[in-house]
Amino acid sequence: MKKLINDPEAVVREALEGLEAAHGDRLRVVYDPYVIVRADAPVQGKVGIISGGGSGHEPMHGGFVGPGMLDAACPGEVFTSPTPDQMLEATKAVDGGAGVLHIVKNYTGDVLNFEMAADLAKGEGMEVEAVITNDDVAVQDSLYTAGRRGVGITVIAEKICGAAADEGKSLAEVAEVCRTVNGQGRSMGMALTPCVTPGSGEPSFELGEDEMEIGIGIHGEPGRFREPIGSAAQVVDRLATAIVEDLPFESGDKVLAFVNGMGGTPLIELYIVYRELNRLLQERGITIERRLIGDYITSLEMAGCSITLLKLDDELTRLWDAPADTPALRVG
Amino acid sequence: MKKLINDPEAVVREALEGLEAAHGDRLRVVYDPYVIVRADAPVQGKVGIISGGGSGHEPMHGGFVGPGMLDAACPGEVFTSPTPDQMLEATKAVDGGAGVLHIVKNYTGDVLNFEMAADLAKGEGMEVEAVITNDDVAVQDSLYTAGRRGVGITVIAEKICGAAADEGKSLAEVAEVCRTVNGQGRSMGMALTPCVTPGSGEPSFELGEDEMEIGIGIHGEPGRFREPIGSAAQVVDRLATAIVEDLPFESGDKVLAFVNGMGGTPLIELYIVYRELNRLLQERGITIERRLIGDYITSLEMAGCSITLLKLDDELTRLWDAPADTPALRVG
Repeated sequence: MKKLINDPEAVVREALEGLEAAHGDRLRVVYDPYVIVRADAPVQGKVGIISGGGSGHEPMHGGFVGPGMLDAACPGEVFTSPTPDQMLEATKAVDGGAGVLHIVKNYTGDVLNFEMAADLAKGEGMEVEAVITNDDVAVQDSLYTAGRRGVGITVIAEKICGAAADEGKSLAEVAEVCRTVNGQGRSMGMALTPCVTPGSGEPSFELGEDEMEIGIGIHGEPGRFREPIGSAAQVVDRLATAIVEDLPFESGDKVLAFVNGMGGTPLIELYIVYRELNRLLQERGITIERRLIGDYITSLEMAGCSITLLKLDDELTRLWDAPADTPALRVG
Repeated sequence: MKKLINDPEAVVREALEGLEAAHGDRLRVVYDPYVIVRADAPVQGKVGIISGGGSGHEPMHGGFVGPGMLDAACPGEVFTSPTPDQMLEATKAVDGGAGVLHIVKNYTGDVLNFEMAADLAKGEGMEVEAVITNDDVAVQDSLYTAGRRGVGITVIAEKICGAAADEGKSLAEVAEVCRTVNGQGRSMGMALTPCVTPGSGEPSFELGEDEMEIGIGIHGEPGRFREPIGSAAQVVDRLATAIVEDLPFESGDKVLAFVNGMGGTPLIELYIVYRELNRLLQERGITIERRLIGDYITSLEMAGCSITLLKLDDELTRLWDAPADTPALRVG
């Protein structure tokens, strides 16, 4: 296993210690249970926003804690849901009296545990709403998921909801913005290689030397099909066509285009993917108004990419452009 | 060869087209010869700053073109020096009447071609100064290099010199700042895996399943030695001890710590590396005042990391904190 780690059992804790050592000016880390909290939380009168999920997808979610985005994040062990006590702790830490939004990726464990945490928080008198993201068009059900998986749109939702909360919107309004983003967003990913989890030391799945998996999940869950490795143009055609035809995105639409690296793909390749995506969307009369290119929701060192499209309107564009200042994403 | 590309021969051009499609609001790309130029160049009265080198190290240098950092970048083919005509074109494009600084990584081809370009530019009446970075403590000479290689400090120098130029410093003063940064900066890298260049389709070198290479170059050039893969703590001890004892950095020093991913290393591991680096420097009485963590000077999909330390003073800290707005690095 070729990894820059010490103890496979201590990966999450030690990475959190590194995150805190690096960014202690703007976030603090609670270690029992693990929660990454914005340094100045709770912000009085602002809706608090938290998310969480298994580790191994960095910078999501901990790298998005900061002004304009998340108030707290709950990291589980690698590819493992965080626990309700983490989510309850996070909810308490960010409740500034205006309620707390839980942004939850659609994985069975995450959903159940966030539900339990919301019930506990409500029992303690806090106001909580949850929005589940399920933007992955690849498969209807999957390992660990009933319904579609929540993937790239989650990053976008965290940014846009952070801006909505900063504007003073109510919990119901911020939750509605989150539902809109999820409803107008679609994603799909692919892998050239599996990844190796530190705990197992083994590849998350097997893939032939000349094969790629289209529709991969961020934990290596099976996608739609395998085929021989194609060109970047073919890969983008597979992903973007499925995305565009699902919503559907139509001629005249303006979109935010998010080309995401899975962790082991060089940036030079992501820009080639972006070139192909730009071309395909132009051919369909769809205009990229905003874009995000880089590694934001990863699967350890997996080579591959995902594409997320969000249909923009003036409000979503304005909220996307609003300032955010987090370790992994800065806007404005 | 598992890559998201179309034609191996067209990788650089197509990535440039993607870069321009994504960031055309702030940069433009010249295609014959390849130059990435800040959209509003030349900035009248400001010292122009250019750099360049082989592609495959993205986001360096093209991702650093923008206000507060580079005015232009010259991308060669993958792991291949750019040509003098690229550098001359870049120099002309950014000359706003205050002269142009060439920041050159110490590789024989880069140095010779930048020298030739500077001579040509001077022949056309432009004022040019060149500063060569050579911060890699791993080896004295190497493949493609006489003397030490130029690596991570180049990223830092581009940021700090960009700020110095924005402040209205003269060409001689900006060049002096660049020499100071290089003189007070040291780096060393390591690899867990090789990378595969698109042109060859073959690994850049061979490394056993349980081996790592300490002191690797960014083109896979040999380092100091190979040994069995150690813990993150051992890796950091190897790299940081060599760096600290070379300058030397001493108790009481304040530093900028740059933990760089080689392209295929997950961010969760880079934060573990940062944790170890922070601990080691604390033990030596050295304080990290600023930091940069992520993939900034890469070697395609190589797994591994490098560490760069820059000894800070008040001026360098102020220049580091000044605003920069480039595709890959935003400050302020």
